[in-house]
Parts: sequence; structure tokens; C-alpha cells
Amino acid sequence: MTTEAELIERLRRHFPKAGDDAAIVGDDVITTDMLVEDVDFTLAIPLRFIAGKSLAVNLSDLAAMGATPSHAVVALAIPPHVDAVELVDALAEASKHHAIEIVGGDLSRGDKLVISVTAIGRAARPLLRSGAKPGDRVYVSRPLGAPAAGLALIQRYGSIEPPATLAYLNRELANAVIRRQLDPEPEVALGIALAQIAEVTSCIDVSDGLSTDLAHLCDASSLGADIEKARIPVFPELHLAGVDVQNAVLNGGEEYALLFTSTLRESELSTRLRRPVYAIGRMSRDKGVRLDGAPLEPRGWDHFSAGL
Amino acid sequence: MTTEAELIERLRRHFPKAGDDAAIVGDDVITTDMLVEDVDFTLAIPLRFIAGKSLAVNLSDLAAMGATPSHAVVALAIPPHVDAVELVDALAEASKHHAIEIVGGDLSRGDKLVISVTAIGRAARPLLRSGAKPGDRVYVSRPLGAPAAGLALIQRYGSIEPPATLAYLNRELANAVIRRQLDPEPEVALGIALAQIAEVTSCIDVSDGLSTDLAHLCDASSLGADIEKARIPVFPELHLAGVDVQNAVLNGGEEYALLFTSTLRESELSTRLRRPVYAIGRMSRDKGVRLDGAPLEPRGWDHFSAGL
Repeated sequence: MTTEAELIERLRRHFPKAGDDAAIVGDDVITTDMLVEDVDFTLAIPLRFIAGKSLAVNLSDLAAMGATPSHAVVALAIPPHVDAVELVDALAEASKHHAIEIVGGDLSRGDKLVISVTAIGRAARPLLRSGAKPGDRVYVSRPLGAPAAGLALIQRYGSIEPPATLAYLNRELANAVIRRQLDPEPEVALGIALAQIAEVTSCIDVSDGLSTDLAHLCDASSLGADIEKARIPVFPELHLAGVDVQNAVLNGGEEYALLFTSTLRESELSTRLRRPVYAIGRMSRDKGVRLDGAPLEPRGWDHFSAGL
Repeated sequence: MTTEAELIERLRRHFPKAGDDAAIVGDDVITTDMLVEDVDFTLAIPLRFIAGKSLAVNLSDLAAMGATPSHAVVALAIPPHVDAVELVDALAEASKHHAIEIVGGDLSRGDKLVISVTAIGRAARPLLRSGAKPGDRVYVSRPLGAPAAGLALIQRYGSIEPPATLAYLNRELANAVIRRQLDPEPEVALGIALAQIAEVTSCIDVSDGLSTDLAHLCDASSLGADIEKARIPVFPELHLAGVDVQNAVLNGGEEYALLFTSTLRESELSTRLRRPVYAIGRMSRDKGVRLDGAPLEPRGWDHFSAGL
């Protein structure tokens, strides 16, 4: 059977345009992501969240390229235990929320629900993973940790609702982080804004976890990075959720924050963007990622090893 | 649970652009089709044929729109019992054969192999299902029946190889029709040529079966059609395969022939196209499809009722 290294080598050789968050074809940027029942979600999650996430993950890829979303197609395998009308309604609702038009699709049956979305956007100057230069500041777009904490809480509670016995503030916090897990907001507006700033040199979205996605960005730019733990923004009050905060922040997937590099200082970039962004370190000629000087291994979600 | 009528109503309401073989966005034509293990294929079929068909079905949709294929993205759910490198090699090979570049993709794991392809092409004058006019001739692009016969033979033999005990000519025929089932050739060049002929008024591909796809074309054009059994071209010697030839020709799916309408006569259209095409009847103001004057029910593959 296949080893991970073999597979990656084949993908790179056969599909050289496929290395970034999305492929560039002319002014179009195109991405595809498939969600599979019992791999990427379970049907304990309401269909509206599953439908929303199926679009959000694709829009986050477009955001990482600095693209303006335009349209999408959706292929569905629908098992007998899923209400097709409810699913189709949920997809229509999600497409309105995310302002991307679903222009076509395909329906099949199947044993498991599969939602495969292809989203297309436009970018005059697409952001790539490969553009970072030594000394560039490394940025994240928002506080991290909530989606992984939310997943841990859903698993702990066996429900997407926190138990009624929880103290009010803890319940509010639990609801907030669970919401971030269920209903991610891709950074579409930020991606478009970053693409208009020439001093932004590279970008990726945090889908697999900060440690892993920063390693991807470093690999693509043939560089390394030094980041500082104290500078990584953490979702407010996350320590109260009773989860491993450091692991959630460094390795938690499904953030859909943007991770990018720029020559600009944090204050100037935040001013230009009219929103906070967070400088967490610098790109370096020394390969590898270091956290406060110690090697930071990529411990986020690995599609290949998890998948094959 | 969902009824078929409810679902179709929702799809039409939510996704008004999704009614044709592919969606039109500017000069782009975009289509998506998902193949699911044990629904659309079994792993008794070699991966190279599965990969080829996953592209071919999408290219046939582009052909039906008269579009020139440009690029594709592929999302895969790969179960442990499928060799990912073999699959990726097969997709790369198929993309070369079909002259469409795979620019991106997504890999997931899953219990069943799922291949979801989105293909994009360009069409200055896309062909629609809805353009037929009363009196237009109804055409099919090539003899029908082989793919359904091939499927019946594969099921009869329990193998894609005919038994060695078969007489030589029967084995040759069996191989030929099985090949047409396993390795369909979409009518890409014909679709492009048809789109350049102003007298070609509508087009669809025969993916669900002649009776069903002609009904789709009639519905979209708000017309009916009268076709003649004696004029429908049949794959040579098909009666020797020991299958229900009439059913294979009228209702067999996965033909990937084009079904289209034109004001031009068969001899003129064939001359202009420099290849034979087959006039099988005429469009009519009388709704419904008739074969030699008797109602022809759509008995091909129905995605909705089969799927849901």
C-alpha cells in the first residue's frame, strides 16, 4: 500500500498547480473540499451547520488566496437517513449567508452523507503560501483555540448543548466555543483586503492547526519561522473551558483564521485593515518552526496520514 | 421524508441556474458529478476505468453544452482498501487522455471510494436543453445500446472479461460492448462543432437513457417529440449479445452520446460535421415522447427516485 511520502510525491508531480489553498487559472481561483459523514462530521450535528461548514471551508481557501467568492457547485451523496429537502434548504440558506451563488450540482445516493463543494472566486493578485521573505512578520488574523475547545466540549457533553447544570458564565463560554466549532466564519473580507496590500507577502488558512499550517507556509516559502507563545492571541477565557488550551491554540484545526506574512508592523497593518491582526513572530532563513526558541513540531491534523 | 416532487421543486427554486447539463457563468461552463462506490461502480472494475469514467461523465456534460474543456478539480474520499497512488496515477492518466488539466483537489478518507469531479469549460454560444422548436429534427450522435449491454454482460459473467469458452466473434462483440461500458468516450469534439452551427437548437447528453433524456429535453423546451424506432441507430450486432436490445437502446444509461435538435436535414448536418449523425424523429407541439406513435415512458435511470 501507499506511503504518505509516495502519495505526496505523486500529487506534486501529477498536479503541480495543486499546492496552494486553491488553484489559479487566469483571474479565477478554484478550490474543492469534500466533507464525509463520520470522517468530517457526524449526523449528531444539525444539517444547517454541516451545510454551512461545507461552504465555509471552501470560502476559507478562497480567502487564503485573497479571492472574491463568485459561485459554487455542490455534489451530494445522500443516504436514506438524511432528509434531502432539509439538506438542500440548508445549502441554499448557507449560500445566502456566505454570499456565494450555487449554480449547479449533482445528486447521488450513498450509505454516508458526502458533500463536495467546488468554489470559484476572482483575484487580481492572488496570495500564495510561497511568497514569504526572511524577516517578514508572521500574523494570525484572530484569537485561536475555540474550534478545538468546542469539539472537545461536544465530545465531553455528548451534545452540542452544554448541560443545564453548568454555571451561567461557563455555559456562555461553552456555547461560544461550540458555536465556533459548528459555524465557522471564513475570513473572506480580510483575504480580499490583504490581497490589496503589496506588503502582504504570503497567506494560508489555519485549517489543520497553527503548527501544521505554519509548517506548510514555511515549506512553500523555503524558510522557517520563530514565533512567540506570549504573542499568540487566545480566545477569551478559554482556560475556563477545562481543555488543553496550549494544544488547542497550537494544533487545533478548523480555525479558518488566516495566517499570513508581511513586512509591515502590527500597528500599521491593523490601522490599514481597520481591524486587529496579530504579529506572532518572524520568518527566518533557518528552516523549521520554533516556539520561544524550541522546535515546534506540526501536530495539527494531517490529511494524508489521517486519511490513508 | 422527502418526496421526489418536493425535492425537484426545491432544487428548481433554490438553484435556478442548475437545470442544464452544466451551469453557465459568463463564458464559463461548469459541471460537477460524483461517483460513489457501490452506487455508481464497484471495485471489481479496475481503478483506471473508474478514474476515466469520473472525468468522462463531466466532459460529456461540457460536450452537451458545446463547451471546450479547460480544467478540473477532483475531491476524493479514499478507503483503506484502495491504493491511493494507483488512483492518483489513474486520474493523471485519464486527464491526459481527455485533455483536461486537473488543477487542484482534496483528499479525505472514507469507508467507500468517492470521486467528485468539477470540470470547467468555455463556450461562446452554449447549447441548452431548452432551445428546441416544433418541427426540429431530433438527432443522436452515434449508435446506442452498447453500454447497457456491456453492464448486463459484466453482471452475467461476474467479470469484465468474457469467458474463454465463448465463440471468437461473440467474444469480440462482448469485449467491444463491455469496453463501451467501462471506458466511455464523451462527444467533446462533436459538442464544440455543434455549438458553431446556428441551426443546432438544443442539446443534452444521453446519460440516463434515450427515453429519459429526450423527456428532459422536451420538458426544458416545453415541447414533445415523435421518434421512429427504425431510425434509431443500434450498436452493430448487438442482438448477438443475448441482451434485451430494445430496452438497452431506449432506456440504457451511460451512453454519453449527444441527443440534439436541428432544423437541418441529416445529410446536410452530417456533411457539415464530416461525420454521421442520426435523425430519429421530430420535435412536436404535442407534449410527451412517442415512439412510432405510441407513448414512450421515460424508463431510464432516474437520479432522484433511484437516489432518494
